[in-house]
Amino acid sequence: MFTATTDKRVAVFLAEGMEEIEALTVVDLLYRAGIPCETVSITNSNVATSSHDVSIVCDREIGDTRFDFDDYDMIVLPGGMPGTTNLGECEDLTDQVRRFAADGRQVAAICAAPTILAKLGLLEGRRATCFPNLQDVLVENGATLVQDEVVVDGNITTSKGMGTAIPFGLAIVAHYLGQQTADDLARKIVYGC
Amino acid sequence: MFTATTDKRVAVFLAEGMEEIEALTVVDLLYRAGIPCETVSITNSNVATSSHDVSIVCDREIGDTRFDFDDYDMIVLPGGMPGTTNLGECEDLTDQVRRFAADGRQVAAICAAPTILAKLGLLEGRRATCFPNLQDVLVENGATLVQDEVVVDGNITTSKGMGTAIPFGLAIVAHYLGQQTADDLARKIVYGC
Repeated sequence: MFTATTDKRVAVFLAEGMEEIEALTVVDLLYRAGIPCETVSITNSNVATSSHDVSIVCDREIGDTRFDFDDYDMIVLPGGMPGTTNLGECEDLTDQVRRFAADGRQVAAICAAPTILAKLGLLEGRRATCFPNLQDVLVENGATLVQDEVVVDGNITTSKGMGTAIPFGLAIVAHYLGQQTADDLARKIVYGC
Repeated sequence: MFTATTDKRVAVFLAEGMEEIEALTVVDLLYRAGIPCETVSITNSNVATSSHDVSIVCDREIGDTRFDFDDYDMIVLPGGMPGTTNLGECEDLTDQVRRFAADGRQVAAICAAPTILAKLGLLEGRRATCFPNLQDVLVENGATLVQDEVVVDGNITTSKGMGTAIPFGLAIVAHYLGQQTADDLARKIVYGC
């Protein structure tokens, strides 16, 4: 049973070829923490298939006239290939990522997806991280590379890959509900115990 | 692109109310490792909805006349509630879990799901673990409780919870392809680096 602990809402964007664990670990942890979170398909179908052939039924579709970015406080971009390429080519999404970043609203990206933020110029002068093989893209676009599992710089949160999906999700929980709540949740899921 | 590295097949059973990360982390890691793995719905629908309201389209349905347990070398049981209760009440599944265990084929369970094995009498005299709050059930049914993230005793693998889903999946990879392959995969997903 979901019990909301905040009125802020998070949207996780799912493209064909996304990394499903990076996407759904956020959904899972936010549900447990009571932070409203919805999956949003960036295609005209409400089913998105991951890079590992797992098909997920999304809560919303980006092209639905009832879908409104202003219903959300945070945009989350999972990685995976070609999911990241597909997210980066979706202008309806990237226009809003740019707007969220400029307005001080929250943007979070993991694995390959921080390269989307880098290419949009949003990481210039910001501390950030991403999947090891792609870190050159961040540096080339003016980011200060940090080798932590999760890096929070102002309203932009970045993380390294599937193996850091739990710390990434916990950082989002900590943003809304504080570090103690995130630490308590880590214990409840038997993470790092 | 999936490239098989073994002819052994793994089936992950999905019930209504399962813990999606415990289920899909196994699917994800096995796909990356080239170990054939399918999700199997235990209902008459090919869509299973998790305890966190995530709906997943399954590869197979247990009631399909074409579905044959003998196509698989391993049964994987994710946890979550009421998913674990639903799995434990599915006799088509538990009959086969009993048979797999007796025949020396592989059975793996995580979080609450090792209690299914305990209640079937399969953990008597075996080393095993499960979600902390449920460990009494294992002890009452004759298991030797171990506090590792993952416990492998012969053909039965058990693990603690969502926060140990990656080590659980990596242990399955190690079973089929060796510890070095599992360690290499951990590095590729930036786990514990």
